[in-house]
Amino acid sequence: MTFPNVTVIGLGLIGSSLARAVQLHIPGVRVTGYDADARVREIATRIKLCDHITESASAAVIDAALIVLCVPVGAMGAVAAEIAGDIPGDAILSDVGSCKESVIEAVRASLPNVVFVPAHPVAGTEESGPEAGFASLFHHRWCIVTPPEGTDVRAVERVLEFWRSLGAEVETMRPDHHDRVLAVTSHLPHLIAYTIVGTASDMEEVTQSEVIKYSAGGFRDFTRIAASDPTMWRDVFLANRGAVLDMLQRFSEDLTALQRAIRWGKGDELFELFTRTRSVRRSIIDKGQDDARPDFGRSHE
Amino acid sequence: MTFPNVTVIGLGLIGSSLARAVQLHIPGVRVTGYDADARVREIATRIKLCDHITESASAAVIDAALIVLCVPVGAMGAVAAEIAGDIPGDAILSDVGSCKESVIEAVRASLPNVVFVPAHPVAGTEESGPEAGFASLFHHRWCIVTPPEGTDVRAVERVLEFWRSLGAEVETMRPDHHDRVLAVTSHLPHLIAYTIVGTASDMEEVTQSEVIKYSAGGFRDFTRIAASDPTMWRDVFLANRGAVLDMLQRFSEDLTALQRAIRWGKGDELFELFTRTRSVRRSIIDKGQDDARPDFGRSHE
Repeated sequence: MTFPNVTVIGLGLIGSSLARAVQLHIPGVRVTGYDADARVREIATRIKLCDHITESASAAVIDAALIVLCVPVGAMGAVAAEIAGDIPGDAILSDVGSCKESVIEAVRASLPNVVFVPAHPVAGTEESGPEAGFASLFHHRWCIVTPPEGTDVRAVERVLEFWRSLGAEVETMRPDHHDRVLAVTSHLPHLIAYTIVGTASDMEEVTQSEVIKYSAGGFRDFTRIAASDPTMWRDVFLANRGAVLDMLQRFSEDLTALQRAIRWGKGDELFELFTRTRSVRRSIIDKGQDDARPDFGRSHE
Repeated sequence: MTFPNVTVIGLGLIGSSLARAVQLHIPGVRVTGYDADARVREIATRIKLCDHITESASAAVIDAALIVLCVPVGAMGAVAAEIAGDIPGDAILSDVGSCKESVIEAVRASLPNVVFVPAHPVAGTEESGPEAGFASLFHHRWCIVTPPEGTDVRAVERVLEFWRSLGAEVETMRPDHHDRVLAVTSHLPHLIAYTIVGTASDMEEVTQSEVIKYSAGGFRDFTRIAASDPTMWRDVFLANRGAVLDMLQRFSEDLTALQRAIRWGKGDELFELFTRTRSVRRSIIDKGQDDARPDFGRSHE
């Protein structure tokens, strides 16, 4: 079932975590890596991220059993085109992109006959680059595999098993449903966090230094997400545009309702919502998806 | 300079943390406590939160040197009226409310001649109640003191010194400026977090269990703040209505601009904003206002 070797293309946070996770959990598997940025390849070589770093995407895939594309979703199509001539006929291609329909379309355009099993590990931090990765990033996190109709069942099972072996929980989903779910649980939250951090930075009467100084009142929580990789997130919003704009519309309606409740002093409406949202937090902790310690376990020395 | 005794009225997260902080840092000072809820008084007695728990607010203040009101901002006026007949002439009254102009007005209505030094420790967790408090909550956090014009300078200095002795950093500010600053750094973030958690809970096509399961994509960060005390926050939004609605208006404009950038595929605008917001996070960490570890230092076992 397991792959004799894995090629990781794109050695940022997720790619470098994947390389480390394979080395930790399935140590017999040879890891080949490539990144379009020469500086990243240099760092990856220095920190011994992979067994082998190649100088081109083509060279990285030439003997590959499993190829995982870990580049921003807007770059998937170009990488697929780049490796089209060298990808082995029996290789399985996968990816880690945060939206799936656009990636499937982009990859299919250059690689119509390759076995492609799209996947999305729902994990990450606000850090970027080859040195930000760590082997346990995927532990107890969900990896959603979104095979388009007609994908070879055995290939899907091998990709599921690959992620399980790295400590992840796995789930399969239709690509379009994935994109709607993640628009709610990930893309909208990022969009809102980027916006509010921008809004707070643009005040005239309240200085930037005051915003930073008193950020423990709540604001600082949003800055973590708003520190996420700009290229990755620009691509996600453009690639999952339809679902993101739909969710944003709903959010705006809800925000307007709350604004009206505040303006008209409708305390009961506020209280009812705030009680309901409190219980959502409890469910997330009960399901092991966040730290149960107050304040994310931040230290108060 | 120090007070021989301190009375804490309201024994929730902040009041109980205050009682514990006094006992830890200035152990000679006697702490008297009162809460309007008999069950809270019972718990406070059982866990030995204070040296003495009284059965009425009046009894709690009768010999007090410093009285700190730790009730929701909407309840400040009623408590002030309740203690009006028993507050000693040389006592200093303070509070911990998240907005200051409305609290000053409410307290002044019943206690026009008492020395009142309003304060706001910018600290907290998403937990509530007498058992949620801990002595180090205020360490390295800012406590903003907002004396109205004409407040006795020596009383202000004693309150500043009191908070310094509990490990807090102190700052003085005009009440109205405080309310604008906190509207940005605290009230707006809470409002947005409550809204998005509500929006995500009300989807038809994406189930509640999917939202919880895949919350590590970003959503879970918002649920912490949206788990904050409903009564406290209802009161804050109603009491600081003007500033909150102003900030909300700015946020909505910025969100609309971002929405438009996504709809029209303006990747450069997105990238520019996301790069700018990333640097805000760095400043917060540099100023010691958040944990430098990725992902808030959440464990990835």
